Formats: sequence, C-alpha cells, structure tokens
Amino acid sequence: MSKRVLIVGGVAGGASAAARLRRLDENIEIIMFERGGYISFANCGLPYYIGETIKERQNLLVQTEEGMEQRFNIDVRTHSEVTKIFRDTKEVEVVSNGKTYREKYDYLILSPGAAPFVPPIEGVNLDGIYTLRNMEDVDRIKEHVTKNKPNKAVVIGGGYVGIEMAENLKHIGVDVTLVEAADQVMGPLDFEMAKMIEKHMIDNGVNLIVGDAVERFEKNNGLEMTLKSGKKLNADMVIMAIGVRPEVKLAKEAGLEIGERGGIKVDAHMRTSDPYIYAVGDAIEVEDYINGTNTLIPLAGPANKQGRIAADNICGRESVYKGTQGTSIIKVFDLTAASTGNNEKILKRQGIPYIKSYTHSGSHAGYYPGAFPMTIKLLFSPEDGKILGAQIVGRDGVDKRIDVIATAIRAGMTVYDLEELELAYAPPYSSAKDPVNMAGFTAANILKGDMKIIHADELKNINPDEYFIVDVRTDVEFEGGHLEGAVNIPVDELRKRMNEIPKDKKIIVYCKIGLRGYIAYRILVQNGYDVYNLSGGYDLVLAYQM
Amino acid sequence: MSKRVLIVGGVAGGASAAARLRRLDENIEIIMFERGGYISFANCGLPYYIGETIKERQNLLVQTEEGMEQRFNIDVRTHSEVTKIFRDTKEVEVVSNGKTYREKYDYLILSPGAAPFVPPIEGVNLDGIYTLRNMEDVDRIKEHVTKNKPNKAVVIGGGYVGIEMAENLKHIGVDVTLVEAADQVMGPLDFEMAKMIEKHMIDNGVNLIVGDAVERFEKNNGLEMTLKSGKKLNADMVIMAIGVRPEVKLAKEAGLEIGERGGIKVDAHMRTSDPYIYAVGDAIEVEDYINGTNTLIPLAGPANKQGRIAADNICGRESVYKGTQGTSIIKVFDLTAASTGNNEKILKRQGIPYIKSYTHSGSHAGYYPGAFPMTIKLLFSPEDGKILGAQIVGRDGVDKRIDVIATAIRAGMTVYDLEELELAYAPPYSSAKDPVNMAGFTAANILKGDMKIIHADELKNINPDEYFIVDVRTDVEFEGGHLEGAVNIPVDELRKRMNEIPKDKKIIVYCKIGLRGYIAYRILVQNGYDVYNLSGGYDLVLAYQM
Ligand SMILES: Cc1cc2nc3c(=O)[nH]c(=O)nc-3n(C[C@H](O)[C@H](O)[C@H](O)COP(=O)(O)OP(=O)(O)OC[C@H]3O[C@@H](n4cnc5c(N)ncnc54)[C@H](O)[C@@H]3O)c2cc1C
Ligand SMILES: Cc1cc2nc3c(=O)[nH]c(=O)nc-3n(C[C@H](O)[C@H](O)[C@H](O)COP(=O)(O)OP(=O)(O)OC[C@H]3O[C@@H](n4cnc5c(N)ncnc54)[C@H](O)[C@@H]3O)c2cc1C
Ligand SMILES: CC(C)(COP(=O)(O)OP(=O)(O)OC[C@H]1O[C@@H](n2cnc3c(N)ncnc32)[C@H](O)[C@@H]1OP(=O)(O)O)[C@@H](O)C(=O)NCCC(=O)NCCS
Ligand SMILES: CC(C)(COP(=O)(O)OP(=O)(O)OC[C@H]1O[C@@H](n2cnc3c(N)ncnc32)[C@H](O)[C@@H]1OP(=O)(O)O)[C@@H](O)C(=O)NCCC(=O)NCCS
Repeated sequence: MSKRVLIVGGVAGGASAAARLRRLDENIEIIMFERGGYISFANCGLPYYIGETIKERQNLLVQTEEGMEQRFNIDVRTHSEVTKIFRDTKEVEVVSNGKTYREKYDYLILSPGAAPFVPPIEGVNLDGIYTLRNMEDVDRIKEHVTKNKPNKAVVIGGGYVGIEMAENLKHIGVDVTLVEAADQVMGPLDFEMAKMIEKHMIDNGVNLIVGDAVERFEKNNGLEMTLKSGKKLNADMVIMAIGVRPEVKLAKEAGLEIGERGGIKVDAHMRTSDPYIYAVGDAIEVEDYINGTNTLIPLAGPANKQGRIAADNICGRESVYKGTQGTSIIKVFDLTAASTGNNEKILKRQGIPYIKSYTHSGSHAGYYPGAFPMTIKLLFSPEDGKILGAQIVGRDGVDKRIDVIATAIRAGMTVYDLEELELAYAPPYSSAKDPVNMAGFTAANILKGDMKIIHADELKNINPDEYFIVDVRTDVEFEGGHLEGAVNIPVDELRKRMNEIPKDKKIIVYCKIGLRGYIAYRILVQNGYDVYNLSGGYDLVLAYQM
Repeated sequence: MSKRVLIVGGVAGGASAAARLRRLDENIEIIMFERGGYISFANCGLPYYIGETIKERQNLLVQTEEGMEQRFNIDVRTHSEVTKIFRDTKEVEVVSNGKTYREKYDYLILSPGAAPFVPPIEGVNLDGIYTLRNMEDVDRIKEHVTKNKPNKAVVIGGGYVGIEMAENLKHIGVDVTLVEAADQVMGPLDFEMAKMIEKHMIDNGVNLIVGDAVERFEKNNGLEMTLKSGKKLNADMVIMAIGVRPEVKLAKEAGLEIGERGGIKVDAHMRTSDPYIYAVGDAIEVEDYINGTNTLIPLAGPANKQGRIAADNICGRESVYKGTQGTSIIKVFDLTAASTGNNEKILKRQGIPYIKSYTHSGSHAGYYPGAFPMTIKLLFSPEDGKILGAQIVGRDGVDKRIDVIATAIRAGMTVYDLEELELAYAPPYSSAKDPVNMAGFTAANILKGDMKIIHADELKNINPDEYFIVDVRTDVEFEGGHLEGAVNIPVDELRKRMNEIPKDKKIIVYCKIGLRGYIAYRILVQNGYDVYNLSGGYDLVLAYQM
C-alpha cells in the first residue's frame, strides 16, 4: 500500500514539500491542507501589490489549487484548518466550512508559518489597523486603500515588512510615518549600517520615529496613537509589522517539543520529536550556521529548501539541512541593504571574538558611468580570519556581493580567501579588484597587523591628550567637515610634512573611506609612529550621525 | 642600503606592484618604466570611450605620473622602453627620447602586457586599420572617428575587444561588420552559448560573419577586404582584434624561460627562472585552476593581483598565486555573457570527464516586474559533482550568478553545495530558489540518476525508430514550433494520456526550458518508461539554430 502524507500549510514550505514528494514518488497519497483560501502565493510580493509595482493580483498566485492538482496530483484542500493532531492514531482533525473530520497519515509535514505579532495594547483591534501575511490580508489593505484613499498611514515596526510597506504606501502617495521601538530599524543590520537606511527613508519622505512605541490606539478623527514618549500620531490606516511568531499551537497541543526560541524543534532531517511528523519553514527553529545556537529565520529560501528536505527524508532519501546563515536583503527606495552570517550584536551576545572592518567601494569601475559606492562591513575571526558575517548597504551591486560572501561563508572561507576570489570584471560590472576582494585585502591587512585600526564609535572614548589626529584628505574635503581637533595634511604631502606630526602621541589618521588613511598609515608607521587608521573613514563617522 | 626595484610596464600589473611595494616598504627605491606616454590607464574602458559612454578622456587615466610620484614616491618614467636585461650585472638598458642608459636593480618586475596580434596578411598596415591596446591607440581611433565620420567599419575578431568595439561603433552610428574566423564568437563560451550572443548582435544591427577570415586588404574607395570565401567587404576603417600575444621579447632575449603557451614562465610566487626577476600579467603563463595545465589569461583582475603578489614576495612576504579560473564577463548590447572555470571545449581537449546541464531561470521572481531569463550551463564531474565550469547568458543578474559560481569553484564545491547555498532573496533580486540553486538541483538530479538527459546536439544522432518524442508544453507552445516527430501531451494531462505513449520505445520528453520536462520525466519513469529529458528544453534547440 502506498504512503499517505498530510501537509499542514500550502504555501512556501508546504507546497514545495508537496511538489517534491510527488516528483519522488508517483504513488504517495498527498493531501495539503490550507486554512486560508489560497496556496502557493507570493508572500514576499504582497507589499509590492499594495504599492502597484505588481499590478495584477493574479501575479501573486504562483500556483493555484487546480494547477497543483493537475500537475502534481495533490489533493489540495483550502479553507481547511488542521485543528488537532492525534499522534497515537496518526490522524489529524480538520475543520472546513463548519465541518469537522479526521484524516489518517503515515507522515505529517507541518509548514504552518509564522503569524504577525500583535501586542496586547489598547485599541489594537480597531478598524483600520492591519497586519500583512496572506492574500486575505492584502485584499483587505488593498480595499481600504482603493476605497478610502487614505492620506496618512502609520507603519509600526521597522523590519522587512514594515519598511517595504512604508515604501509601497509612499509609492501610491500616502504620507507615511514609521514607528520603531528599538534605536534602529532593520534588526539584522548593526546600528551604523541601519542608520544609512534610515537617512535614505527620511530623504524619501518617510517620517521616521525610532526609539519610541505605540501605547494606545483610539478612534479620533481616524485613528489616533499615543506613543510612550507622549507624542500623538494620527492616521487613516495603520500597518502593524513588529515581527512574527512561529505558529506552534497545533504542534504544542500535540505535545511536540518546542525549542527555547519558541519554534518547533526539529533535527537536521526536519523531523520533530515525533518521527512521523516533520516541520519546516517559519514555524521551526534551526541551527545558526555561524554560532551553532538555535534561531528563528522566517525567510522563504530556507522554507522552500526545508520543504524539499523533509520530502526527501520521507521518501527514504537521507537529506540534511545544515543550518542557516540568515542571508537576507531588502530594497529601500533606491538603496539595497543585505546581510549574511552573524552581525556584531549577535557575536557580542554570543561572546564570539571578532574583528570588524569597513570598506566603501564602487559598484563598478569608477570611470564607467553609473557606479555608486557601497559600504561593506565584514566581521571575521581574530584567530584565523574565518568570515563570521557581512552587511552591505548601497545602491547597486549589493545583492551580488552579499551572495558572494554568503557563498564564501558556506564554504568556511577566510578573509584571505576573499582576497583571492577571481570574480568577473568588465567595466559595467565591477573593478579589477572587486569590492569583495577589497574587503578581503583590508581585513587581511588588519589581521596580519599591517594596519591597526580605530572605529568611529571608539572615538568618543579616547583621551584627546594622548592622540594626534591627522586628516589626510584634501583641504577642500577637510573644510567640508572634519573630526574635532584634526590637523589637515593631505596624504600626498605627508612625506614632506611629517615634522608637523608629534612623535610622542598616538596618531589617528583618516580620510573619506579609509584607503588614503591606510596609505598614510603605512607611511607613518614605517617612520616610527604609533598609528591607527579610522576604519571606513569619515563616511563611517557620518553614518553614526545620520 | 635599501632595495632597488625596477618595473617594466606602468599599467595594471606594473602600477599595482609599485603601489603595493611602497605600502610595504617606504625605503625601497622604485622606478617604473613605461614605453608609452601614460601609466595606470583603464585599458578596459577604451572601447567605451570610442562609443561615448565614457565621455571624458580624462576619466580613462586612473592614476597619473605625478599622482603616482606624490602618493607612492615612485620614480615614474614614461616614454622609456626597457630594451635589454643584463642578468649577470642586474641591470636594464633603457631607451628614452633617443637616449640609452642603464639602471641597476636588486629586483626586476616585468609587466609588459600583451600585444594585439596582427597577422602578416597583405595590406594589413594600410591607413585606417587599427588595433586597440593603449591611450595612443584610442587617441588615433578617436581622431579618425571624429575627423572622418566613418559610415562603415569592419571589426576583425569576435573576442572581447572585437565585440566591445562593434557595439561601441554602433553606438556612435557607424555601420559595423564583424568578421570571425572560427565558427563562433567569444572563445570562452561554448558554441551554443555563443550563438545567443551572435543572435543578439545581429538583432542589434551588427553584420556578423562567422567562419570566414580576411585574406587581403586593399585601398579602393576606402578599404577593401577580400575574405577566404571570396566575399568582399568595404569600410572606412578597420579594427583588428583577433587576440593578443604575450610581450616576451625582452624576457626571451634575456634568456628567461618561456612556457609552451608562449608566455613567460613563473612559479606560484610570480618568480621567473631568474630569482631576481618577477613577471606578472598578460605576459605570463599561469596554472589553470581546474585542469592544472598552463594557460594565458590576459585579464585585469589576475594582472592586478599578481602584481600585488610579486611585490609581497620581493618584500619577503610569502604570497602565492593559486591559479586562474579565467572568470570573465562581457556586455553585448543588452545581454551579458560570462564564464568561469573550463568550458566544454577545454574539458574535451584535456580529456577530463564531465557532465553538462542547462537551466533557464528568471533573474528575479517572475511576479515582480523586470525579470529576464538567463541560461546557465554548468559543467561538473561525473564522479563527485565537483564544479568544473559555468557559462551564463542573460540580460540581468548574470554577473551575480557567475561570481557566486566562481566563488564555489574556488572553494572546491560540488553541485550538491550549490543546492544548499543560502543566497539573498527578496523579489527585486532573486527567487526563493536562486538560479544558482536551481542549476544545483538540476545537476544533482542528473548526477544521482533521478533524471536522465539528452542534449540538443545529440538529437541529430538518434535513430528515430528507437525513440518516441513527447512535447509536454501546451498546445499553443507546440504549434509555435516543435521537434520533428514530437507528439504533444501537455504535462498536466500526462497521467491521463499515458496510454498514448508506447512502452517499447525510449521516450524523449521536452518542454521550453527543461522543468516541465523533468516533471514529465518523473511521472513516466515511475510508470516504467525509459525516459530522457531534453536538457535546457526547446530553448536550447533554438540556441543551436540561432
Ligand atoms: C509581507 C511579507 C514579505 C516577505 N518578504 C520576504 C522576502 O522578501 N524574502 C524572504 O525570504 N521572505 C520573505 N517573507 C517571508 C516568507 O514569506 C516566509 O518565510 C515563508 O513564506 C515561510 O514559509 P512557510 O511555509 O513556513 O509559511 P507560509 O508561507 O506563511 O505558509 C504557511 C501557511 O500555513 C497555513 N496554516 C497555518 N496553520 C494552519 C493549520 N493549522 N491548518 C491549515 N493551514 C494552516 C497558513 O494559512 C499559511 O498560508 C515575507 C513574508 C511576508 C508576510
Ligand atoms: C580594449 C581592452 C579592453 C579590455 N577589457 C578588459 C575587461 O573588460 N576585463 C578584463 O579583465 N581585462 C580587460 N582587458 C585586459 C586588461 O587590460 C589586461 O589584462 C591588463 O591590462 C594586463 O595588465 P599588464 O600589466 O599585464 O599589461 P598592460 O596593462 O597592458 O601594461 C603593460 C604596459 O607595459 C608597457 N611595456 C611593454 N613592454 C615595455 C618595455 N619593454 N618597456 C617599458 N614599457 C613596456 C606597455 O606599453 C604597457 O603600457 C582589456 C584590454 C584591452 C586592450
Ligand atoms: C510553486 C511551488 C509549488 C513550486 O514548487 P517546486 O515545484 O518545488 O519548485 P520549482 O517550480 O521552483 O521547481 C523546482 C524543481 O524543478 C527542477 N528544475 C528547475 N529547472 C529545471 C530545468 N531547467 N530542468 C530540469 N529540472 C529543473 C528542480 O530540480 C526542482 O526539482 P527537485 O526539487 O525535484 O530537484 C512552490 O515553489 C510555491 O508554492 N511557491 C510559492 C510560495 C512561496 O514560495 N512563497 C515564498 C516566496 S514569495
Ligand atoms: C591605480 C593603481 C596604481 C592603484 O593601485 P593600488 O593602490 O594597489 O590599488 P587601489 O587603489 O585599488 O587600493 C588598494 C589598496 O587599498 C587598500 N584599501 C582599499 N580600501 C580600503 C579601505 N577602505 N580602508 C583601508 N584600506 C583600503 C587595499 O587593502 C589595498 O592595499 P594593499 O594592496 O596594500 O592591501 C592601479 O590599480 C592601476 O594602475 N590601475 C589602472 C590600470 C588597470 O588596472 N587597468 C586594468 C583595469 S581597466
């Protein structure tokens, strides 16, 4: 007799598992239950449908119920919620259109996803306050926008979904205020990198409030919000996007093990504590590829791959998930921000030793038009240079460089390996030394002791009497703004004017991005000075002030 | 006493070595000799200056003589040709403005580059026939173009420089014919991938002649060319771009070892057969990272990195060059073509066993506007799936995927590793399964025997009586063109119509790109058929016919 596999959730993880199961085995009986009205929709495209970049609702439906049945011979049941798991009899209870029934399984795959977190604050259920997760949500928001033509919206939460919604609402002419409780938007980025995004949002007309939170919603000429600070905001509509929580109710009630981060616990085969039940996607905890702890990574790439892995294992093919790097990316108006591996906040929290270095490079050769600078923050091990993480913010070519570094991390590469990468170069695409090579050179120089650095966030802690600061940019650049107390000696005059630099102090050199600072560093250090180059240059100082 | 290092050639390899030497050691005496009038210019930008994408000549000069002297304290001598090396006395002979003199060295770095190959055919030295290598060349071509406003140009050679010149001359309104002697343009690509480029060039108005060569130039109302085929061409100007030859005269006369590919022989430290002489860049032979043989890779990335490595070693820092993958890329009007590692032609020649697979994926999620398909050809080892090479042609995102695969090759990854790569996904940038993941899945499926394939170029060799061909696309697609003898059964009807497929024949299934063919394959194979999926689908068949 053929196997019977039931799947809970019909979108990223669930549908991928179903398709893979069928490809591996024509004879399995596969039933996919989806609580909502749609399967296989493009969650990630939802904000862009609101913003009218994606014009046709139809385009969000990557695969339909009928399509899935015809192509993969899957019994797809929408509007069908799985409400209980009877592990002893290997059955589930399904509620559909008011009817309740049971189905038997040999294997069960849970891919229920994660639900937008809605904090229990006053008025949070008032009309006009939305979350965004599925087609039903997007339809509701679209209807509000179309019918009510809101002038003002407040987006609560500065993560991926919040920022994407802010941008998309601006696109259709809505005045947007974004409120973020933390001191920065975009948790996966470190503070100084997030500030670049924030500045860009403000430049694009988003009213940005960080470090404040909504305490109360009231109906008052639309919606009125009172923030912790006492500030009041008004809006015609509100998007709540302060993060998601794994959907674990079903699993929990069935007695499946839940991890300490609140996700369903699975082994590397995606098997839960019950060997006949697999779980994948936003609902599970996975191992962090860098630090080995458990983590929640609500992203589509991992969900789809995990679905495939669960299917493999159910079909008797040994297949393991090796953990997540959390590689992610977001478009913020004209900027792109991306990260992979651990950020500085995580490394600190985990007590993992690291060095950080910053480089700014052009997206392609400067002499070919259209090149834009990007900032790369690289985190690596002080022991062997192993890459621990990277963050990049820029206008163009950011996705390429984060993917290259993500691949390098997966391969266990070091910053020395980045120096050697042979990447494709022609003027429209890169430079003879790609930004990734450049990040590698710079990191390797630090690691080998060829360049001692100081960071922008350390400047405030230094004793001004101990240090002599040299700004090695041109006088024009210097006049446009410089560090307090800095003396301007352009790098090209440094050899001649070295007598202006005292021998009895530590020297900090800096330029705009770090490169000329490094050259100045090499000149001074070989002349007996104790020198520190400001990593990332004055641009990084400015980033902190954004 | 401080070391004295002389450098021959002041552009990519030479200038990089000089700068690095200075950063490592303030006390070395560095003299850089450049035969031409310019150092550190953007060779790779020259065609775009002709095409007016790069508007200012100034922008081509990345660094100047004065700049190099000020910043790096290098004694730069332009218009100074090194004409002899006296290895016994460690001296060179320099000819500059009619004067000849000698300079002593402790170490000598040769970075003389490669010269455009000019075949000894009749009339090849006539006025109006140009090669393109340096500023002097580009000035000459620019002058011709500006003064004579040519209507017609012939470009000879369909490599990087030839194609870039063809495109750039089209940009300024010149009618361009490109003549290539081989049966395809762009040697680094295999035939079927090159055909995509060729079609695009033709679509953009280039008159393309492949498989024919110029035999004779004559002055006749401008320039007249007679081709091998007897065909005659006329033009106001001609660009000769049939490849480059390493500049080894100086090295050869000095008795340095020359390799069998005609480049200067160096070890991994960039040291020639004389331990006091290093050589880098286009003039040398390097090891092919994939197959271990010696090869010539006239590319800027390797040249710059090798210059840095030579400098390191001269300063007593052990630093090695681990070989080249030949990663390269070219913009051809709206297309991008890129390759890394070995192509099929090389693998065949070297007798290295390989499997090839083709996938076509969107540059980003299909539901987000602006996605374009790209074709990925992946070459990998039948033994362990180690990646041997890749070629990609498409409109957008090609550079990213080639760099990811180049990184994977450098790390010694297999196609199984490509399946697992965690790449950055948001709709504007990629899909939840990136094209590189997709290429990995498909290759892994072939390797594991989950999908047997047949290639488009094998179709002509099969015995039609042995095979039954099923086109699993929709009827509309089928009617738009299909394989001879194919029967149309759309994949979604396959389970119901399986009785139409004979059991006593081998079955070839195909769709547009290979994906639906694969799904059909899985259905049929599990129903007892002996099936082959056409790798890359009908699109690959069309590529061969382009
Ligand atoms: C607005 C938005 C933008 C996003 N952008 C990106 C992005 O750019 N990049 C990225 O990588 N990720 C993005 N994501 C995240 C990505 O969509 C998720 O990581 C991915 O969809 C998770 O897959 P999943 O299968 O675990 O859950 P889902 O895709 O959410 O599917 C779970 C499904 O299970 C159903 N379900 C739950 N419980 C039951 C039950 N008991 N019975 C029946 N059905 C049930 C739910 O209705 C839901 O449809 C975005 C998400 C959202 C909401
Ligand atoms: C039009 C064009 C487009 C290109 N596009 C790309 C591209 O997109 N991507 C890419 O990777 N590569 C590209 N390249 C190739 C790239 O420019 C070379 O690989 C690189 O410049 C090689 O560096 P090199 O130092 O070996 O030689 P070069 O940069 O050529 O420098 C050699 C210098 O040495 C001088 N010289 C030679 N002999 C002597 C002597 N005896 N005495 C004094 N001086 C001497 C020469 O005058 C020359 O200026 C392109 C090249 C050209 C010409
Ligand atoms: C639509 C959906 C059901 C498709 O699932 P799928 O069939 O597994 O995925 P794809 O259509 O990408 O196809 C991938 C398969 O085709 C194969 N394939 C791809 N290109 C191929 C080619 N050219 N030749 C042969 N095989 C190919 C792959 O190997 C893979 O098969 P495998 O897993 O058996 O190895 C699922 O992706 C889905 O529901 N997506 C929408 C929801 C979602 O992901 N949301 C979050 C992101 S917005
Ligand atoms: C202009 C030229 C002389 C510069 O050479 P260079 O100084 O070695 O190269 P760059 O300007 O790219 O600087 C790289 C150095 O800066 C360092 N650097 C880069 N960004 C940095 C930062 N933000 N902070 C600190 N250091 C940085 C790198 O580590 C590297 O130093 P290292 O080699 O000592 O490790 C040389 O590249 C050249 O001649 N180019 C034009 C010719 C050419 O390449 N043609 C072919 C391509 S068109």
